[in-house]
Amino acid sequence: MSLVEGLIRELQRLPGVGPKSARRMAFHLLVRDRDGARQLASIVSEAADRVGHCSLCRNLTEHEVCDTCASAERDGGQLCVVESAADVQAIESAAEYRGRYFVLMGHFSPLDGIGPEELGMDQLEARLDSGEVKELILATNATLEGNVTAQYIAGLAEPRGISVTRIAHGVPMGGELEFVDGQTLRTAFNSRRGLE
Amino acid sequence: MSLVEGLIRELQRLPGVGPKSARRMAFHLLVRDRDGARQLASIVSEAADRVGHCSLCRNLTEHEVCDTCASAERDGGQLCVVESAADVQAIESAAEYRGRYFVLMGHFSPLDGIGPEELGMDQLEARLDSGEVKELILATNATLEGNVTAQYIAGLAEPRGISVTRIAHGVPMGGELEFVDGQTLRTAFNSRRGLE
Repeated sequence: MSLVEGLIRELQRLPGVGPKSARRMAFHLLVRDRDGARQLASIVSEAADRVGHCSLCRNLTEHEVCDTCASAERDGGQLCVVESAADVQAIESAAEYRGRYFVLMGHFSPLDGIGPEELGMDQLEARLDSGEVKELILATNATLEGNVTAQYIAGLAEPRGISVTRIAHGVPMGGELEFVDGQTLRTAFNSRRGLE
Repeated sequence: MSLVEGLIRELQRLPGVGPKSARRMAFHLLVRDRDGARQLASIVSEAADRVGHCSLCRNLTEHEVCDTCASAERDGGQLCVVESAADVQAIESAAEYRGRYFVLMGHFSPLDGIGPEELGMDQLEARLDSGEVKELILATNATLEGNVTAQYIAGLAEPRGISVTRIAHGVPMGGELEFVDGQTLRTAFNSRRGLE
């Protein structure tokens, strides 16, 4: 296999990249952006070697403690539990949340061997025992696994007298009822609230 | 900027990759495929350093002469001129063409300083002078620049008594007339042929 073909094959490791886009990427790098290709290779390799998990929140970072956990401006009284690093970024760019995070890096999935240990429950319990956390915000996905995971974590927080909340689920903003799926609509009805 | 953010930024060099897909790719590599990330980095870097141009057809290759040019099974009497390495791959996977290629790596574009020299016209003329080529097939894109480029190259081949053809343009197979653009339809009418 030629080096160009090998490059096209390796690029298909990236999620969402099939043979056609891999080919386009390979030619782009080789024909128009050699220096960029070298920079890309160097940062991918450096990140693969040096990025680990934050010792406090388990998010990805090349430091012992990530920037969010290290920041003195975040409110340690609120702890938001999410499934992935991408969720942290989504919340950071959309919400005005100023508390801290705990990143599970997954959800309960007994069939795949993912249980309390893999999700860092020891670390989370230690965090809850520290006495700093007043509110635990469950922001796992609105899926079966995400809900089970949220349930389990709620069970850890409640005996410790920590207030537990779950982010709201319902009709998305801008969503038209006609096009919303039945499960979401049922949830939206069951979670209805008094007008403020 | 953290290493993870740097990685997300660098991934956006790839064509068709915006901030969201770059983030997804970065997390995929770091969370699920570290070894893959290292392999990817190593082949990108190796390709950036070692891939050059074939001395005969200008296509991308890490050798002095590319596999297609080196193959004894290809018919040297036919030479197909294309704009890019991707075009070669497209023809190889779709057509039953068994001749050789010449890859311009671009098209005439005086405003960008791309003229005969940048497109390897010296090399092409030397190839035509060798006497091996009987038919020159012009497969540049069906764009203004592609057509100008094809015209220019035809002007090199004709005085040398080499037969020059252009791949057909018209309604794509499976294309419905109603949805074909006017320019294509005009071309299709003007290039109509007797039924065989």
